[in-house]
Amino acid sequence: MTVATAGEFGLISRVTARLGAASPLVLLGPGDDGAIVATPDARVVASTDVLVDGRHFRRDWSSARDVGHRAAAANLADIAAMGARPTALLVALCAPPDLQISWAEELADGLAAEAVKTGATVVGGDTSSSPTLTIAVTALGDLAGQEPLVRSGARPGDVVAVAGRIGHAAAGYTILSRGFRSPKVLVDAFRRPDVPYHLGPVAARMGATSMIDVSDGLLADLGHIAVASGVGIDLRRDAFQVPEAMRAAATALGVDPYGWILAGGDDHALAATFPPDVELGDDWLVVGSVLAADVFTAGEGVTVDGRRYAGGAPGWDHFR
Amino acid sequence: MTVATAGEFGLISRVTARLGAASPLVLLGPGDDGAIVATPDARVVASTDVLVDGRHFRRDWSSARDVGHRAAAANLADIAAMGARPTALLVALCAPPDLQISWAEELADGLAAEAVKTGATVVGGDTSSSPTLTIAVTALGDLAGQEPLVRSGARPGDVVAVAGRIGHAAAGYTILSRGFRSPKVLVDAFRRPDVPYHLGPVAARMGATSMIDVSDGLLADLGHIAVASGVGIDLRRDAFQVPEAMRAAATALGVDPYGWILAGGDDHALAATFPPDVELGDDWLVVGSVLAADVFTAGEGVTVDGRRYAGGAPGWDHFR
Repeated sequence: MTVATAGEFGLISRVTARLGAASPLVLLGPGDDGAIVATPDARVVASTDVLVDGRHFRRDWSSARDVGHRAAAANLADIAAMGARPTALLVALCAPPDLQISWAEELADGLAAEAVKTGATVVGGDTSSSPTLTIAVTALGDLAGQEPLVRSGARPGDVVAVAGRIGHAAAGYTILSRGFRSPKVLVDAFRRPDVPYHLGPVAARMGATSMIDVSDGLLADLGHIAVASGVGIDLRRDAFQVPEAMRAAATALGVDPYGWILAGGDDHALAATFPPDVELGDDWLVVGSVLAADVFTAGEGVTVDGRRYAGGAPGWDHFR
Repeated sequence: MTVATAGEFGLISRVTARLGAASPLVLLGPGDDGAIVATPDARVVASTDVLVDGRHFRRDWSSARDVGHRAAAANLADIAAMGARPTALLVALCAPPDLQISWAEELADGLAAEAVKTGATVVGGDTSSSPTLTIAVTALGDLAGQEPLVRSGARPGDVVAVAGRIGHAAAGYTILSRGFRSPKVLVDAFRRPDVPYHLGPVAARMGATSMIDVSDGLLADLGHIAVASGVGIDLRRDAFQVPEAMRAAATALGVDPYGWILAGGDDHALAATFPPDVELGDDWLVVGSVLAADVFTAGEGVTVDGRRYAGGAPGWDHFR
């Protein structure tokens, strides 16, 4: 059955039925003019990300459930990167009339399954017909009394650390775009990010000075921190371990795996800066350091081993 | 200059520059992983609506600024219809690469100008390239201690009242779709809704029992209240004054103006039910009454003068 056959209200009721039990913070879920979510902190963190068919995903590369996981993760990671705990998602689905209703249902399954990892629930949304399958998600979150971790707090002398996978999604993307389907661990990483959401609030409590989620690429995203904080950042290339599957894929495809690690996006790892005396433990990999702007002369915000990175575009521009 | 020439970050900086001063409730605006908005009530109301080019607007019928006003209004009205005050908007813009950057800037102008009417601010968003120009907006709002006005509270004996324009946008749509451009008051009503936002929280304080914004059509939207509340609703056709411009346009086009009034959407008027003893004042027009389900035998949720309405489709289905 297509979404056109089901109609707008048929689609909404079928999708809503897949969303699972609401968290206790959801005071009013789907079905009214607006949802109501408790905000115990008396502040709400909100972020929006949109995924467009053929641009952020391909239906022959990713299942509907994968796309749901990715659409949710892209937004939930933004909330975590503020040091907050996600509470709710709102989803606008624009679907071609001939889209199978099962695709929309499985998308909802993926959205709900990813949200529940963080304690969040899909609380509302909208649907429309469109020639272009498009999923716009808004995530809400609660700071639980913590100050938010913004991009502008990095200070010279801080260490730069990452938590979560880096370069895996970009490797998976390259593999799929060359017509291959393995190594599965990398292709699956492109299909579904594995985001250490809980480490966002943990980093805030540990005293992190700035944080961002790696959506455009590590160099590009740390560049946002460098600019916002008025500092330079230098990464150490050999701080990154290239996993065996990634090394093998890079060799087979004739590419430099550090391109994936340093410039590849879509893993939604967390990248943060910490004062040098913070005990980071096993969840964080120290990959570089923050330098004062006046001793940082590379002019690009972020260098690798003291030099401007020459391995390709530093990140993804959604219009180029 | 096109959005592709400006690039993603050029587009974001140009659009962000148009958003105006943030309200005191905006603790962190655009430019980080998430925005932060104060929620003094410790609950946030959230709603998402999406507008698709060729489906909800046409660029030859509406200016970019008009589309911004409409996109904001559709969402802000949902917040008002919950009895809440809008505080913030998040906007996802999917744009064809050849879209003029001025169009995106003027869209931002319209969004900001409509938001400021309610005290809300655009606090964040996302952009992507897409073959289909699409604007997904999420609105947030604060209940200021009021209980939310949901759809399920209407009780037999309540009166049904509306605030704001009814049928104007539908008339304007019909006029434009027949190739005409006047009467201007109706065409402009389609281009930019005129929503009595402040009456949402006022209705809550006055003791309204349910409320909805009229986006799909009065019969369809009151039908949602009837179903959610387990009641019937009967409207009185002659409660509605047909404005002179609407009567003239209907005569010229050979249509029944009550079709616009009863079944036309997109005005985002507020429709509410009130206990019969509430003094409604001049802002509200009493148009009908709530009946117990067991004396309401029409089987359709909403009748007009005791009969099922036969004047056309009762509302808009975005997939049909």
